[in-house]
Amino acid sequence: MLTSRHQVTIEWGDCDPAGVVYFPNYLRYFDASTNALLRRALGFGKSQMLKKYGIVGIPLVDVGARFIVPSAFGDVVTIESTVAEIKRSSFRMQHRLLKGDTLAVEGHETRVWVGRDPDNPDKRKGRPIPAEVVERLKG
Amino acid sequence: MLTSRHQVTIEWGDCDPAGVVYFPNYLRYFDASTNALLRRALGFGKSQMLKKYGIVGIPLVDVGARFIVPSAFGDVVTIESTVAEIKRSSFRMQHRLLKGDTLAVEGHETRVWVGRDPDNPDKRKGRPIPAEVVERLKG
Amino acid sequence: MLTSRHQVTIEWGDCDPAGVVYFPNYLRYFDASTNALLRRALGFGKSQMLKKYGIVGIPLVDVGARFIVPSAFGDVVTIESTVAEIKRSSFRMQHRLLKGDTLAVEGHETRVWVGRDPDNPDKRKGRPIPAEVVERLKG
Amino acid sequence: MLTSRHQVTIEWGDCDPAGVVYFPNYLRYFDASTNALLRRALGFGKSQMLKKYGIVGIPLVDVGARFIVPSAFGDVVTIESTVAEIKRSSFRMQHRLLKGDTLAVEGHETRVWVGRDPDNPDKRKGRPIPAEVVERLKG
Repeated sequence: MLTSRHQVTIEWGDCDPAGVVYFPNYLRYFDASTNALLRRALGFGKSQMLKKYGIVGIPLVDVGARFIVPSAFGDVVTIESTVAEIKRSSFRMQHRLLKGDTLAVEGHETRVWVGRDPDNPDKRKGRPIPAEVVERLKG
Repeated sequence: MLTSRHQVTIEWGDCDPAGVVYFPNYLRYFDASTNALLRRALGFGKSQMLKKYGIVGIPLVDVGARFIVPSAFGDVVTIESTVAEIKRSSFRMQHRLLKGDTLAVEGHETRVWVGRDPDNPDKRKGRPIPAEVVERLKG
Repeated sequence: MLTSRHQVTIEWGDCDPAGVVYFPNYLRYFDASTNALLRRALGFGKSQMLKKYGIVGIPLVDVGARFIVPSAFGDVVTIESTVAEIKRSSFRMQHRLLKGDTLAVEGHETRVWVGRDPDNPDKRKGRPIPAEVVERLKG
Repeated sequence: MLTSRHQVTIEWGDCDPAGVVYFPNYLRYFDASTNALLRRALGFGKSQMLKKYGIVGIPLVDVGARFIVPSAFGDVVTIESTVAEIKRSSFRMQHRLLKGDTLAVEGHETRVWVGRDPDNPDKRKGRPIPAEVVERLKG
């Protein structure tokens, strides 16, 4: 399965009064990392992905994270993201945030490939992930 | 002109490692306060406002703030928002954040009433603010 | 165990280009709800709690959420938070976000009562939750 | 005076239901850009800067921005930041966000070099910016 790695500098504005990353921001980092992996896999960005495949998004149905070691502003960390599982209309991402060689945070996301419901355009409905996308995510 | 006042509790997650509000969050508070004033003026929310008047938003062209006294998590502050000026397709909001009787932050926003450009739906264009909206904003 | 309920208006700035809450913001709401429950249980805010008990925070070691029904800007939702379990130096919160009677999001947090390590003030260490705090959290 | 340029990819989570950057996030980008310029000027990060010079932060007293062209998720923009003016205990930053050659947003920040008040450690007080920092910021 496809894996991506990139570095993130922890910003002052992402940290809380204890001086460490305010935890919801880790999930923002992971979300951005998923988007970056998709961009690399498909060769174009999320905006084009939504248009090309006629979907409204890839919302989460499930998220989880374990916080092992805190990070502070100025720290440069590595985020390693992997497509862990692909089902008919959903896929699972696994994320690891590393400080040097130390695993600092690990998380996962389950996301659904979602378009408008043909019977009611105000509603949304899971759709099969296109075969070419599945191919690319398999790496 | 219309004025609204409401209380905000400063949250832990809105503060930075210095223990005080991370400044962009003041602008989030002011934005929410503008939306609350509009909701009260019109009798319905932003979502319905966009649909009813066929606009895509009321984006800012200009923002400014002065930070006089910091606020920390747990502080309960008052935000006082006023429609300061209404032009053909834009309006100006003035915001004051008070700690007790002390002016802690003051800010302003200039916003435009924006719809899709009829000649190019991918583009956006300022539109005249409807007379009934102007009436309501005058209070 | 102690339970609290409060209403939250979903803000424009908390939503993403799909028009619904950007998921990390649900975790911000839950964090604020935990803080509000503690404030009510103890009779004072987080700032005073940190000083009084000599701790640096109540950081998460674990978070999880399931997203069942999306919410959009302008929606008024109810967050119901409960102390689910109290151990020696950690406790578990359970959160339910309701749209009317519908469960829209559910989540949990495991948090640790953390002070400075007496052997190394640059490090942090879990500490026993004071008996009076345990009493109050039991409701 | 010192100038820095760096690229930013606009993230999905930084955009609002109109599909463009939620405006307070531009101020987050500018804040991060100021921190990056300082890091480059001094040769160490903000965390070390606060310790070395015994200050608690460089809070803003004034911020302003003009929004000329919107940016959407996936856009790669350039932020150009310059030290515009240095006074005894404050300095002014100027920021320009460019889409290709087009000026999309411009903003400024006035920041104060702030330590604890020696007469009351709970209070904060502006302090003279150290000569070596002034030198470095002049580039």
